This record gives sequence, C-alpha cells and structure tokens, in this order.
Amino acid sequence: MSAYASLAAHFGRIAAMSNAVGILQWDSDTMMPKGAAASRAESLALLRVLQHEMAADARIGDWLEEAGGDATLGEWERANLREIRRVWTAQTALPADLVEASSKAISACEMAWRQAREDSDFPGLRPYLAEVLHLQREAGAAKGERLGLSPYDALLNDYEPGGRSATIDALFDDLAAFLPGFTQEALEAQARRPTPAPLEGPFPVEAQRGLGQRIMAALGYDFSRGRLDVSTHPFCGGADNDVRITTRYDEADFAKALMGVIHETGHALYEQGRPAAYMNQPVGQARGMVLHESQSLLMEMQACRSPEFLDFAAPLMREAFGASGPDWQADALWRRYTRIERGFIRVDADEVTYPAHVILRYRLEKALIADALPLAELPAAWNAGMKELLGTVPPNDRLGCLQDIHWPSGGWGYFPTYTLGAIAAAQLFDAACRAEPDALPGIARGDFAPLVGWLRTHVHGQGARFSTDELLTRATGRPLDAGMFKAHLARRYLG
Amino acid sequence: MSAYASLAAHFGRIAAMSNAVGILQWDSDTMMPKGAAASRAESLALLRVLQHEMAADARIGDWLEEAGGDATLGEWERANLREIRRVWTAQTALPADLVEASSKAISACEMAWRQAREDSDFPGLRPYLAEVLHLQREAGAAKGERLGLSPYDALLNDYEPGGRSATIDALFDDLAAFLPGFTQEALEAQARRPTPAPLEGPFPVEAQRGLGQRIMAALGYDFSRGRLDVSTHPFCGGADNDVRITTRYDEADFAKALMGVIHETGHALYEQGRPAAYMNQPVGQARGMVLHESQSLLMEMQACRSPEFLDFAAPLMREAFGASGPDWQADALWRRYTRIERGFIRVDADEVTYPAHVILRYRLEKALIADALPLAELPAAWNAGMKELLGTVPPNDRLGCLQDIHWPSGGWGYFPTYTLGAIAAAQLFDAACRAEPDALPGIARGDFAPLVGWLRTHVHGQGARFSTDELLTRATGRPLDAGMFKAHLARRYLG
Repeated sequence: MSAYASLAAHFGRIAAMSNAVGILQWDSDTMMPKGAAASRAESLALLRVLQHEMAADARIGDWLEEAGGDATLGEWERANLREIRRVWTAQTALPADLVEASSKAISACEMAWRQAREDSDFPGLRPYLAEVLHLQREAGAAKGERLGLSPYDALLNDYEPGGRSATIDALFDDLAAFLPGFTQEALEAQARRPTPAPLEGPFPVEAQRGLGQRIMAALGYDFSRGRLDVSTHPFCGGADNDVRITTRYDEADFAKALMGVIHETGHALYEQGRPAAYMNQPVGQARGMVLHESQSLLMEMQACRSPEFLDFAAPLMREAFGASGPDWQADALWRRYTRIERGFIRVDADEVTYPAHVILRYRLEKALIADALPLAELPAAWNAGMKELLGTVPPNDRLGCLQDIHWPSGGWGYFPTYTLGAIAAAQLFDAACRAEPDALPGIARGDFAPLVGWLRTHVHGQGARFSTDELLTRATGRPLDAGMFKAHLARRYLG
Repeated sequence: MSAYASLAAHFGRIAAMSNAVGILQWDSDTMMPKGAAASRAESLALLRVLQHEMAADARIGDWLEEAGGDATLGEWERANLREIRRVWTAQTALPADLVEASSKAISACEMAWRQAREDSDFPGLRPYLAEVLHLQREAGAAKGERLGLSPYDALLNDYEPGGRSATIDALFDDLAAFLPGFTQEALEAQARRPTPAPLEGPFPVEAQRGLGQRIMAALGYDFSRGRLDVSTHPFCGGADNDVRITTRYDEADFAKALMGVIHETGHALYEQGRPAAYMNQPVGQARGMVLHESQSLLMEMQACRSPEFLDFAAPLMREAFGASGPDWQADALWRRYTRIERGFIRVDADEVTYPAHVILRYRLEKALIADALPLAELPAAWNAGMKELLGTVPPNDRLGCLQDIHWPSGGWGYFPTYTLGAIAAAQLFDAACRAEPDALPGIARGDFAPLVGWLRTHVHGQGARFSTDELLTRATGRPLDAGMFKAHLARRYLG
C-alpha cells in the first residue's frame, strides 16, 4: 500500500469514528432520556480520546513525508495531504496536560456561567473565566509557535484555517465606521412605515413542521441523507451522508422556527454537497466556519428574506395555517421579516445590527487574549462598545457580557466567523445571481435549483480544496470584501 | 491501582464502547436515513473491532491472575472476576481469520436468504448456509476446546452461559411428549366456544402509542432511562441507563403492537433493574438469554394475558379507541387474547404451540452441528418434525425451514432459549405470586409493584452473580423445571 493509500485509509477510520461521535452527540441533544447523561458522557469522552489518538498517530508524519514525494498524485490528493498535515499538526500541537486542564476548566466554567448568567453575576464567573482564558492563551501560544502565528490568530485558525486578525481588523473597522450611521438611517426609514401587529396564532407544531419540511425540500435538502428534529438549541450535525438539522417550535410565532430551519438547511446543503469521492477525507470537509456560516446566511438572509422568496412562501404559509387577509400577502410578510431593531442580545439580532455584536466581541476577545484588557474590566468595556457600535447599553451583565456561552466553553476565535460569513454570503449570492440570471426568479417559483446548482459547483463540491479567499476569488472574482454586504443592506433597508 | 481496580476500569471502558455501539445500532433501526447505511456500517464495524480488541487485551490475563489472590475482594467482586474471565475467554477463543471468514459468510448468507425465502428456494440458499454451518461448527469446536464442551454446547454457552444440551434434551423430550396431545385437547375445548369476530378498527397509531406508554408506565418502565419508538422488527436495545424499546403499529389490530410493547418492556425491566453499582461491569449484566426471555414472557404471557390484566386494561383499551359493547368487556378480550392455533410460523405462534417450533429447530440445529443430518435433508427433516410435533406440514420451504434469519445470521444455539425462557417465566411467576399474594390482585388494579418488586430483588438486581439454575433455585426452590409451565397451560387452556 502506498503512503498516500495508508493515509487515506487511516483518515477514513478517523471519519468513521467522527461520524459515530456526531450521531451520539445528535442523540444526546434530541433523543436521549435524561437518566442516560452520565453513561453517554463516558462513551463520548472515550470515543473522542480514541479519535484524538488516531489523528495524532506518529505514523502520519512518516506517511506524509513519503507521500510528499509521490509524483503520481493528482491535485485533489495533494490538497488532501496539505489538509491532513493541518489536522495532524493541530492534534499534536498541544501537550496532553494542557488539553486535560482546559477540558476541566471549561466544564467548571460552563457550569458557573449558567448560574452567573441567571444571577447577572460577572464577579461570580470571573475566576472560572480567568482560568479558561489563561489556558486558551497558552493553547494559542503553543499552536502559534508551531504555525508561526500570534496566539489569537492560532485560535482563529482552528475555526477558519488561514483567517488572520489583520484582515479582520480592516474589514471590521470599515463596517464599524459604516454601521452606526446606516442603522440610524434604516431605523428612520422603517419608522415612516406602520408597525405591523403580531400575526394571530397559535401556529400548531405539526403545521410548522410540515411547512419547514416543504421548504427544506424546495431548497434541495436531501431527506434520504438527513432528518429534521427538535432540540433546545438548533444545530446542524450528524455524520457523512447523514446531515441532521434541528429546530424548536414556538406556537405563538412560526417565523422563528422557519427561519431557523432555513438557516440550518443552508449549513446542511454545504455538508450534503461535499465532494462524494472525498467525503471521509480531510480535503472533502467544509473549508471553515466562514464559508459554513456564509451558506446558512446566504439561505436565511439573502435568499429567504427576499421579496421573491415570500412570493413563493406566502401561499404555503397561508395554506399551512389556514390564514388569509392583507397581513398574509407576500409584500406585508416581507416587510415584517425585514424589520430591524437595536437590541442587547446577539442571537435575536437582525442582519443590520448583528455585525455590531460580533465586532464588539471580536475586539474584546482579541484584547483579552493579548492581555491588553484586564478581565475585571470586561463588563465596562462591553458596555462602552455597545454604546459606540449600537448606541444602546444593556441594563445588566445578563443582557451584556454574560449572554454567550462561547467564552466559558473555550470558543475563543469563533465570533468573527459569524460576520465574515455574512459578508461572504452577500458576495456569493451576488455572484450566483449574476452567473445564473434565473436564480432569483427561480426562488419566486420555489425553484432553488439554479442557485443551489451554482453553490454546489463553486462552494459545496470544492470541500477544503482551496483557501477561503482562493475559493471566493474563483467564485466571485475577489477575496472577502464587504462591498456587496453593504450594498445589500442599502438596497434592502434604504430602498 | 489494584489489579481488580484495573480490570474494573478497563471493563468500564468496554461498557462505554458497548453503549456507543448500542445507541448507534438503535439509531440504524429507528432513525437513520437510508443514504447513511454505508457510512454507518463503517462506524459500527470500527467500534466493534475496537471493542473486541479491548475485551481480548492480553493484560486482562495478568490482572485476572493477580486479582485472583486478592483476599480483600467481596462476593460480588469475585463473581465479577469470574464473569470477566468468561468474557475474555470467549473473546480470545477464536482465531482472527475464523472471525473474519464467519462475518463474511454471514453477510453473504443473509443476503442470499432474503432472496431464497422470497422464492421459497432452499437449494439456492444451501451453499451459503453450508459455509455458515461449517464455520459455526469450527467456532463451536474452537470454543469447546477451551471450555471442555461439545461444539453445540459451546455455541449455546454464548447465549446461555452454563446451558447444556443434556439438560435441554430432557426438558424438551418431556414437553415433546406432552404438547401434541395437550394441543389437541386445548383446541377441542376452544372449539366448544364461539369464534370471536375481529374487533372493528381502525386503531389510530397515536392512540395505540398512548395506550402502550400508559401500560409501560404501569409495568414500572422508567421513561427517564429509556424510550419507545418504531422499527420494522421490534427489539429492546440501547445502553446502560438508556434502555430503548421499539414496536410497530398495525391500524387494523392494536393487540400486536400492545403485546409486543409488553414483551419488550419485560426485557427492558430486566435491563433497567440491573445492579446500579455494577451497571458497567460483566457481573452487572443480565445473566443470559434464558432469564432475559423469561422476563419478557413473564410479562407478555403470564402477567398480561391473565384475566386480572384485562380487568385493568379493558377500560384503558375502550378509552383509547372510544370503543364499547360486549366484545370490549374484560372476559371477552381475555378469551380473544388466549386463542390458540396450529400455524407454520414461529413468530406468530401462541404460547401453547410455540415450544413445538422451538423444539424442532433445536433438534435440527444440534444434528446439523454434530454432522448427524446432511444439510440437503433439512427441508424433509423440518416437515417430518412439524408433522410429529405440530400435526401440520408447511406447503413450501418459505413457510418452513426458510422462515427464520437465525441460521443464516450465525445464531446457532439461540433457539432453545425461547422455550427455556417460557419455562422459567412460568416458574418465576408462580413463585412471585406465592411470595407476594398481592401480585395478581395488584395487576387487576394496574399496580405491578408487588410483582416487579419481587423480580427486582430475585432476578433483575442479581445481574450475572449466579448461574441461571442457582438463581432459579434461590428464587423458586428448584432449578429449571417444566412443571409450572405445563400446569399454567392446563389451567389457562383446559380450565
């Protein structure tokens, strides 16, 4: 067996393990009875240790060296070697005692966070968060040393390979200068229109589920390789050829679940559309979190808050809920689903105000990792940033710096990918609509094939073959660029 | 760490792996989309190989040797060492190439069987089945050599540790002499009563599910450590503290699903009632398939086809389906659910005729393993046995020797446990009712606590601490004995 074949077989086994973990994690969040939590935690911990051991196997280094000189390999195989090396480096960069200490600190901090958030008690969280931060900084330093990156860039690199804070700074500074004035202008335009009263429910769960499934099918989701279920926190998970999404239903407001389903379907289309021949290889995985988030936001924000989508969806909504009248016409629904407001909570934010939440978190976490901001000053810095970027200050830390689980759970470096994803979504959607003139008109007919076909070719089917910027340049003519995002916002909210 | 502690930790990890396999297998049968089958098969194969490697670990032998001299161990710990040795011996008895050849032969034979059964084509199956039989014989010989057992007893021992064909021969010869005359007599008694017309459906799935869950709860099933779902072939599976059962619904006949739910609940009560302190250790597992089947049949046949059960359940059935009238009274329902008939198909058989199906299969598989019956003569031997034991001959092999998957799938030695379980069920139910005079009256009120409390103490909570016969002797005063089973049949069907 050639060194390349040995690597491919080995990473195929790692994928088989990762698929097992993915389904068990999905089950924990959707199906598992409460009393099984402790047994399940042991199974997942065991499988994750084995997966780590497989991905850190010393033979990988020898195989990589030998395969590097294999002149028979094609372009995909060479890209696979590059991705294998990336995965292997990440798995071997951290000393085992740091991994263990970090895992314990995160468990303790997550538990403390649940209570601290409830009590709006930042001082109660601080010692736990300080420990997580300290260990994240160490992890960033250890990885950074291997990769020649700053600690923050090394952390970011785990979620967005190739992502660099220098690039993000430029993009976010530009947006931070643009957004406050734009938001004010958009709110003023909105104030000139009447505020719609809430649609009258209840909207039965079964009807919501049926509507969601119908729209998933229209978007091109393959139900023979996935499922739709219910969980407290919606997600897209599962395994290769088994991409499962979840939502949660509110009988008073069907739009939350529906827009959530569309968002997760965007993620799922990326996963289902990865290259079949490399499905279980590193090069066949999604490129990174920026492009992943771009696919969910392209569907949720670009495609499915368009007037064209509501031309298609309004009759389905009326049919699902037996509704009628002027509030249920496409244009009224479109106005309703493109309303904006200044809020405190990121996950409830609209597409205009969302970037401000992200820019704030990005700036703060970068400063914390660089030790340029004392942790004790986080609440004050948060509130000052909210004032600057959003023009509003939360009344307490529960609605402020305690709202997200990312920092307590060790997800430092993740936040910027949300807004980078929104930027990429606008750029890709624009390119798709230019390349496929039937993309938007198709949506109005419920035919997403022109749009999704383009995404399959230019994004999903490329796996991790190119860097994010290289993929974007091939697909749209330029690397990540906020121009289309700003143009999209102006068209939709000032038009 | 002491040798015993090392063993306990190691087998705890094996249990964590086994729990992962259990949930993934459950998911394959209940939730998995079709397109995931190939990926899932790879994950399951990988996890099973790892589980086998862990259970065959050479260190286990050293730890066992050292722990054998540990005077600080209590009775449960010593029983755990005995069970650990049993598991380890079973895992190491077979050469790897035999395991692999057997696994391949079984996959091919199962596929051939599906077609052969459809076509009623025994000659088409024969070469595949011959290969499976040959490898089972080799496996039995290899295990038998390690254990000092005949090949058939060594195969049987995998399902029923300590089970021996000499004992089974005596029990089954006695039953084989008793049943043909008894069946004739019971059918004549039944013929003197009017044949009930079918109950008028449809019985909506949701109402059936609700009724099933209500009765599961009455039986003492713990929904915080399990679930009820739907699968093509009902089973009890899952993991420690996560005991999941399935059923399938027929809207024309609710009794099939309900009796299936009760049967699987009997299995589940055993699994949920295993000793908490040894839940992930070999001594904390169910003793074997005879006692397992005894718990499902005790619930399905002894407790829940009793007049007392129908006193409790008839009002729930009427309520669930909005039914009324004389057909829905407890006595009429009881007559309906204790009707018997001579049939060709084992899985459709009632408790009077079921043992004949099992005795036939037991005699045939024992002869085949011993090379005392040429495989080519199986159909003729099957039909002769059906004539002798059941007084009826199937018109073709589809309804005859091709009906069960057990032989194609390598389950040689499994069949006798069904009827040994029915015998143990009658014996245990009788002892429970004598020890707990409120057991039967309790059932009439929907209070299963007296019965289940006794089972928890005398069966479930004992795990694999004793042999089947020792457990039965402690619980009922004697080893496995068909007397109570025959008395039960006489009381119910001739009374």
